[in-house]
Amino acid sequence: VTVVGAHDGPASTTWDDRTGAHTRRLMDWAASNRYVDLPQAAVRSSRRLLLDYVGVAVGGADHEAAPIALEVARALGGEPQATILVHGDRTSVANAALVNGISSHVLDYDDTHIPTILHPTGPIASAGLAIAEWRGLSGAELLRAHVVALEVSTRVSLALYPQHYDAGWHMSGTTGTIGAGIAAALLCGADGPQLVHALGIAATQAAGHREQFGTMSKSLHVGKAAANGVLAGLLATRGYTAAPDPIEGRRGMFTVMSGRGDADALSAGLGSDWEIDRVGIKPYACGVVAHPPIDAARRLRTEHGLDPAEIEEVELRVHPLVLELTGKPEPRTGLEGKFSVAFCAAVALLEGAAGPREFTDETVRRPDVVALRDRIRPRAVAEIHHSQAEATARLRDGREVSVRIDAATGTPENPIGDHELRRKFLDLVEPVLGAERGRELIGHAERIDAMASLGPLTAAAVRHESSPEHEGGEP
Amino acid sequence: VTVVGAHDGPASTTWDDRTGAHTRRLMDWAASNRYVDLPQAAVRSSRRLLLDYVGVAVGGADHEAAPIALEVARALGGEPQATILVHGDRTSVANAALVNGISSHVLDYDDTHIPTILHPTGPIASAGLAIAEWRGLSGAELLRAHVVALEVSTRVSLALYPQHYDAGWHMSGTTGTIGAGIAAALLCGADGPQLVHALGIAATQAAGHREQFGTMSKSLHVGKAAANGVLAGLLATRGYTAAPDPIEGRRGMFTVMSGRGDADALSAGLGSDWEIDRVGIKPYACGVVAHPPIDAARRLRTEHGLDPAEIEEVELRVHPLVLELTGKPEPRTGLEGKFSVAFCAAVALLEGAAGPREFTDETVRRPDVVALRDRIRPRAVAEIHHSQAEATARLRDGREVSVRIDAATGTPENPIGDHELRRKFLDLVEPVLGAERGRELIGHAERIDAMASLGPLTAAAVRHESSPEHEGGEP
Repeated sequence: VTVVGAHDGPASTTWDDRTGAHTRRLMDWAASNRYVDLPQAAVRSSRRLLLDYVGVAVGGADHEAAPIALEVARALGGEPQATILVHGDRTSVANAALVNGISSHVLDYDDTHIPTILHPTGPIASAGLAIAEWRGLSGAELLRAHVVALEVSTRVSLALYPQHYDAGWHMSGTTGTIGAGIAAALLCGADGPQLVHALGIAATQAAGHREQFGTMSKSLHVGKAAANGVLAGLLATRGYTAAPDPIEGRRGMFTVMSGRGDADALSAGLGSDWEIDRVGIKPYACGVVAHPPIDAARRLRTEHGLDPAEIEEVELRVHPLVLELTGKPEPRTGLEGKFSVAFCAAVALLEGAAGPREFTDETVRRPDVVALRDRIRPRAVAEIHHSQAEATARLRDGREVSVRIDAATGTPENPIGDHELRRKFLDLVEPVLGAERGRELIGHAERIDAMASLGPLTAAAVRHESSPEHEGGEP
Repeated sequence: VTVVGAHDGPASTTWDDRTGAHTRRLMDWAASNRYVDLPQAAVRSSRRLLLDYVGVAVGGADHEAAPIALEVARALGGEPQATILVHGDRTSVANAALVNGISSHVLDYDDTHIPTILHPTGPIASAGLAIAEWRGLSGAELLRAHVVALEVSTRVSLALYPQHYDAGWHMSGTTGTIGAGIAAALLCGADGPQLVHALGIAATQAAGHREQFGTMSKSLHVGKAAANGVLAGLLATRGYTAAPDPIEGRRGMFTVMSGRGDADALSAGLGSDWEIDRVGIKPYACGVVAHPPIDAARRLRTEHGLDPAEIEEVELRVHPLVLELTGKPEPRTGLEGKFSVAFCAAVALLEGAAGPREFTDETVRRPDVVALRDRIRPRAVAEIHHSQAEATARLRDGREVSVRIDAATGTPENPIGDHELRRKFLDLVEPVLGAERGRELIGHAERIDAMASLGPLTAAAVRHESSPEHEGGEP
């Protein structure tokens, strides 16, 4: 049985009856969902996540990995279709997606789907913004693609979690590619059957090993997810074919990349339960599992007024995954610091913050930081959830002070407010583009669904001569 | 302990002592091996495989998937660095690698590392030829990169086989990316330590599900392996970092993509046992496991002079993998025909051949082919190796005729000769570029290690107005 799918445009292809039932339902939903069908809460969340995306991508654009990727993109060249944020190059949608994707993740400061530790918006928005800019699409179209692609990629993540992640896959590289592919395909005008091909082309490109955490290749996963997604969208809408059942099929993504997959998660509650409601915005520039201990360290400082010099040692009780992911005892670089919960807690105690300024090589090597870091004792406790933490500081005078974090800042139960989001955004953007541009970008992003095209937004995200960090000779 | 590696150029980086011992040995060997160190047999094999590569890539350039990828590459654009074979576009090395890689695999006619069913040269040569053309390197440099990268990718394949393949990974997408990354990095001038970074950037991009077999996305795996390898080479030689132990490490390629890996296979016998000796050139345009049954069918026809009309049925006894991979009973397209051993045997009985002309939609649907196909009964027999097959034809007059294939044509034990290789090459190239160009290309490829640059070869592989299949309006 092949039937014509429900979607906005004319049907250019037909459904294949070999597609798995859950995959088919998800793709049919994705193709037929319109902007006006989105609940207001999802629209608001999307606006906030897109603002946060621009902030982390602008903030990361000069950081380690991104300038090297920019150099490669310049060497390869491409049609002037989309903008590389900050640097301002107009290049192919594939190159722009690659470099902006890397920039968006290099600070480890982008949003997180809390149930699966996927960072959904980096791949989706890096692919989507490039295609939308190229095709002159509206902000509402980008927002709709973001919400729908986020729903698809988080549902594939839910189906695969935790086996896939435990096996060593980096979700943001793997299901990130799915999100980018769906966003790109929708913005290229795919109908439902083409969306299944795009899903397959994306799934079979999905990649990224957790072994790469702590190196530039971690953010490459997000850049490649975005660029591979762009390719999936371009190919599928031009008739390139993929297997009809790329996720649930015998040798498809579920079996190959996790050994199992909970297909029901693809379609259960579709249209009533929105995964975007479970995406958190990070208050700290590191992996989300280190956030509860950072919250705990900050509370020791702010609520109990501890002076680090008084501290004999701090026992941190955390979920086992925290130590597995961030157990580096002696980080050597800013990037490695993100993978050391002892460093994270120490710097949060000393500075009351854990933003990009704290995750530098200089700070990681600072003698007072190293000395306090070596007095932090993290301990895995199976009963503690990865959004929770407990800390007990033993002071030189014999006193003990304990704190407990039940839901870390930035989780859906304890979200950061619009004011804090703008503050985070300006902290990232001001040093790169200046305060005025920062405020202009906030204005665009907060009204993105009213923008007729994305040109004014990408133009405002480019560094000009008056910007604080202008490098001479750049376009 | 960090020491400076042995290589031709100045050391720009140092070795990381966290790299696994076998990986380190393999990368040190790869970086330090020079053209003059290669055994003559390896040089000869490389020349033959590169000639075969040009043939299959030219022959595939107009076929289904490749023109769509070409359209996408044209939309993206890029600096005029390297040539897209046949079509003649000069575009970025990434785009050229992508499209040429797809062309080289779309006919399922490219070379095979028999022990692991990896198709090594498609990814390596698509990446390597693009970089060599761009950088004006010699044929000897390309040939050396081919031999070395082939050794690296086949050894990673050996370490992962069969678990990785059985799990559903397409080797040519996964370890193909490793081969392309090593070739690209060597041709970009990487030293040993940079080669470890290129290996890591390649490994963490490795992808491709067997679910995609029988669709255009199978050849996308090879195109993406080539393009991802180019990216790995460009990034690593500009200082982009990856994990120090990307293959043997705790969350590295072995664990994540197979659950285990035989690390010893990476370095055992390095420099004395050459895997290039175990790479076969295909006589038939389909998966290598279907070759023994095709040989058997052809022998029924040629040695026993059977008339298909006389045949009641043919029992084929084959290795179980043959049915798993090529068990489609009723293929609908030429592409699906490659995955139907019954069709392959039927067409070989009827035509005495199984080249690109046999794997067309038209032939697959031909009534006489379908009728004979339905009288072929393949049966899995565990004791038969995947290079062997047995066939018994039962004739309408009651007679039985049996044949046995011990080593299929094209395997290392039964290689195709230079004359047959040239015949295969011309069969592929003549219809696209004409006989004169075909002979010119043979001349270049057979003396490739004497070529000062690859320009004359790529120029001869471009279709001009006088070519048989010229499409008006193409560059």
